[in-house]
Order: sequence, then structure tokens, then C-alpha cells
Amino acid sequence: MKEITRQEAAELLKSYDNVAILMHQSPDGDAVGCAYALCTALRRLGKKAQPFCTDPMPSTYSYLTEGYEEQVFEVEKVVSVDLATENLFGKKLSGYCGKVDLCIDHHGSNSGYAACGIIDASAGACAQIVADIIDCMGVTIDPYIADAIFTGITTDTGCFKFSNAKADSFRMAADMIDKGARSVMINRLVFDTKSRERLEAERLALDSMRFYCDGRIATIRVTKEMLRQSGAEESDTEGIASIPRQIAGVQAGITLREKDEGRYKISLRTTDDVDASAICARFGGGGHKAAAGCSIEGTADEVEKQIVQAASEMIESKT
Amino acid sequence: MKEITRQEAAELLKSYDNVAILMHQSPDGDAVGCAYALCTALRRLGKKAQPFCTDPMPSTYSYLTEGYEEQVFEVEKVVSVDLATENLFGKKLSGYCGKVDLCIDHHGSNSGYAACGIIDASAGACAQIVADIIDCMGVTIDPYIADAIFTGITTDTGCFKFSNAKADSFRMAADMIDKGARSVMINRLVFDTKSRERLEAERLALDSMRFYCDGRIATIRVTKEMLRQSGAEESDTEGIASIPRQIAGVQAGITLREKDEGRYKISLRTTDDVDASAICARFGGGGHKAAAGCSIEGTADEVEKQIVQAASEMIESKT
Repeated sequence: MKEITRQEAAELLKSYDNVAILMHQSPDGDAVGCAYALCTALRRLGKKAQPFCTDPMPSTYSYLTEGYEEQVFEVEKVVSVDLATENLFGKKLSGYCGKVDLCIDHHGSNSGYAACGIIDASAGACAQIVADIIDCMGVTIDPYIADAIFTGITTDTGCFKFSNAKADSFRMAADMIDKGARSVMINRLVFDTKSRERLEAERLALDSMRFYCDGRIATIRVTKEMLRQSGAEESDTEGIASIPRQIAGVQAGITLREKDEGRYKISLRTTDDVDASAICARFGGGGHKAAAGCSIEGTADEVEKQIVQAASEMIESKT
Repeated sequence: MKEITRQEAAELLKSYDNVAILMHQSPDGDAVGCAYALCTALRRLGKKAQPFCTDPMPSTYSYLTEGYEEQVFEVEKVVSVDLATENLFGKKLSGYCGKVDLCIDHHGSNSGYAACGIIDASAGACAQIVADIIDCMGVTIDPYIADAIFTGITTDTGCFKFSNAKADSFRMAADMIDKGARSVMINRLVFDTKSRERLEAERLALDSMRFYCDGRIATIRVTKEMLRQSGAEESDTEGIASIPRQIAGVQAGITLREKDEGRYKISLRTTDDVDASAICARFGGGGHKAAAGCSIEGTADEVEKQIVQAASEMIESKT
């Protein structure tokens, strides 16, 4: 993959027409924000463009996606946003493998599958790169694009809480607010709105919480029975993984999510330099230092014992 | 009260010595951040200064308050920060009533109790005004002051979610990060750290949730029994008031908090232009449009019936 600058990407985009913009499967706010912002900018220049995704758009972002004009055309150019590897294209977009002209991404792990691209791992959100490129394209950022870019920044930084929320993320958020982004409405929808089913699933999961290692490890379980009882969907329970680590004194928060055939998906969140990635690597998983995951087979009690044991050893080796 | 500019306030402060800096009772992050930032700036200019508060400093802000040198001196000048009325001085500071030389505040409702002051209701946090004044004083904002100012901004804007989080709040947060503010650590401590007792109280309170008016009203109860069972303190349960409104479709989220002698304190949070302040005014309370409170006597069921009835009427009058 040829690495190019934001200005070069803008020039390329200005030379394109009939552009497909690809998002990763299970799209998050950064993927949706990037795709709709860039698509709108291209259309503003009189080009045909359309965002594509294997999965349907999450309802949370309907303020960006609902009523968005669908353009039908013969695709000439393919651009991917916030998309680290072709594995994440999903079924519907698999036909685009090997055919991406331009990739705009902020994952250091990007596999370099595109003909050319910008991979800027220093950007808190991919939307920050997209905003720069739109600016280089000479397109004015209007309130719609500002909403889309703000959405990308706030979702990828966990409402400006994660370590990727650097000063430039805050400054670009401020610029987007100046250009009309509805920051308060967006943050309320994304971070402070839960379905009744999700709240009920959380309530049930809280009942399962246990503590180990003098309160430095907390576990919580999300079982299929809880989903059934609450009526929640799997995706409703993503936020539960952040609960155990929020407890004062907890250095490793572990969520066990029941999957098929006696298999549990583990989400591990850590603080105080406890290496989540190293703990999960012992079970064939991986991730980041403070957030990682793996899959373990067994009954809930067996799985919990194994992962707690691994986390305990890591915590105790540090003290 | 004589209204002055930030520059004039800076000149006054530079002319002061032996300064008492007053915070309101039950101090929040903005009060603590303002007082410790300003005190540090004054000391940096070689002056004696000390923050004062009726209540002890909340442990959440120990990264600002713990180990902070206590200076003992005969008070010559009195400055108040983030302090709207003398009613909020509390018992220990009551001796300062009528004696405040300079008031720095962002509450439009400020009673004008000081000799002179800056009341800038457009500032998302009072800490933003304090940072401007420190700048005018010619004191460099070091990492400690940056932590204090960032604390004020993020706590008063609910981690940049409330409607007072404007572009300038984001920009000043960015500046503080550049000057060394530990934004990630601070946001984790303030927003993502709960005591085990608090989590247990939340779990119990969730069990009491009820819905009315086609799911547009949700109620939750915090009883003395729940506090006893969970071991939580009253202050641990403040966050619970935000839970009912978070549910999709809920326009009025009501929290009933059991007080002494058959009395309940009501916290009302609303969306979609439902006027919380008008609803609470019917029971002798008040507040803002989206967040208000009142006190009602009776059994839990009686109180719930009354406040739900009032909220229903308000919601139905709008549809």
C-alpha cells in the first residue's frame, strides 16, 4: 500500500466519481460518521457516492442515516474508512476484497490491503482524519457533516474518556460544535440512552457479580438465560463489560458472556498497568493493555476459575 | 456588587495577600478545582492563601487536595469561587457572611453578596473563568493547576455531555491537556469509579423501577432500608437520579429518596422539553427545565402517585 498525505487523498477523491464507501461489519459511530461525512462531501462536489456496510446501520445513529438519499450507480472507485483488514468487510462486501483504491484509517494494525491510504494511528478517531481530508477537498463542513464527525470522535473516545482522547480530539470536537454539531443530543443518544431490555439485563447481570483477590478482581456473567428473561439482544449487553472495572479497588474486571456449546467469551478490562492483553494471550486471545478478550471452553464456574487464576497471578506478580 | 472584568479581578488578586478562598458546602469538582487552582496561583506569586469549606474535601478529588500544604495566617482578603449565595457557605464559613471582597462565579442566580465580582453565566464551569484570571495574573498554568481546571470543567459539564459544554469548554479542556492535565485519570476517577456499596445500592434501586404513561415516565426508589442493606451513604446514591431518564422513550425520570418522618425528596430529570421545573413548582420545589427537585410528604406509594400524576398531566398537555 502506498502511503499518502491528507492533501493527496483529497486530490484523489476530487478526481474520483461513482464512489463506494465501505464500513466494517458491526459498524460503530466512527465507521458510520466517517462514511456519511465523506459521502456527503463527495456529493457536495457533484459526484455520485454511497456508503456500504454488510450490517444494517445501528438505530442509535439514525440522525445521520435515516432519510439519507440512496444513490444507485456502477461503482468506479472504492474507498474504505476506519477499516483495518479485509476480514472485517463481512459477507455482503466480500466482493470488494482486493479492490480498494483508497483506505482512510487510524488502526496501527491496518493490513495495508488498499492500493493507497492514510493510516494515522495518532488520530483518536478516524473521523478526525476524514475531517482534515474534507477540509483539503475544499468542502465546507456543514451541520450534517459536523454531526457525523462529532459522532466519530465521541464514540471512539468513549465520550472523551479513553486515552486516545487527546487535546486535538477535544479541539476538533469544539470546531464541529462551532459548525453546528448537536453535541448534547448526540452524547445523550450514544451514552445515556438504554433500552428497557438492556437495563433489565444489567440488573440481572449485577446479581451475578463476584469478587476475588481482596476485591482487586470482579467478575460478572451474561448468560443466555438472562438475555431470554430480559428480552435483550447480545448487542444490548456490550456496555456491561465496563461495569466490573468501575468498582473502586478493582484492577481487573472480567465479563463472561455465554456463547454456544459450553463456550464463554471473556472481556477483560484492567487498570493500574495490569496487562489485559497478556492475560488473554494465555487463552489464545488478545487486545490492548487495558482492554482485551478471549474465548474459553467449559462450564461458567470452570471458565471463571481459569481466567480469575490467570488474572490473580498477573496482579500478584506486580506487587 | 460591583461587576468587574477578568483583568480587573487579576489586578485585585495581585494586590491581595493572606487570602481565604471560600467554597460552597457539599463541594463539587468545580468548587474544589477553582479553589485549589486559584490558591496555587496566589501562592506562586508569593502570597499566603488557603481554601476553606464547611464540609471535608470529597475523596474523589484527593489528587488535588491530599498533601496540599496548609497555610495558617490572619485572613486579610476573602474570595469566593463558584458560590452563588451566602446560604451555601454552611456553618463553618458563616462568619464570612458580608465579608467577601471578590466573588468569581458562573451562576446567573448569584445574589451579589460580594463587594465586587465576575458573574459570567456563559461559562460552562466556573473553572473556565478562574483559568482566564490566572492567565491575566501572569501565572503559568502548570500541570497541577491544569488538573484542577480540567476537573472543574469535566465535572460541571458531566464529562462534556450537558448543554453547558460549549465549544469553549472543549477548547479549554484541550489547553489544559496540553499543559499536563491528567484527563484520562481524572475522568475515570470522577465518572467511572463506584464503591461496591454504591453499586449494591444501585442494584437494589433498579429492582424498584416502575413505568407509567406508556413508558414515558419511569420511577425509581432509594429507601433507608436499601442504604442499610447496601452499606451505601446518601451521597453514594446521587448518580441513581440519572438512571430512569436514560431509558429509551422515557421523558420524565423520577427518583424518590426516603428522608425523615414520611418525607420523600424527589429528583426529576426530563427530556423533550418537558418542564421539570414547572412540575416541581407544584410541590413547592424548583430547578432547571431538564432537572428539578421537590419534597413531598406521605408514604412512598402516595408520593409516587402525586408526582407521577403531575408529570403525566405535563406530558399529556404537550401531545
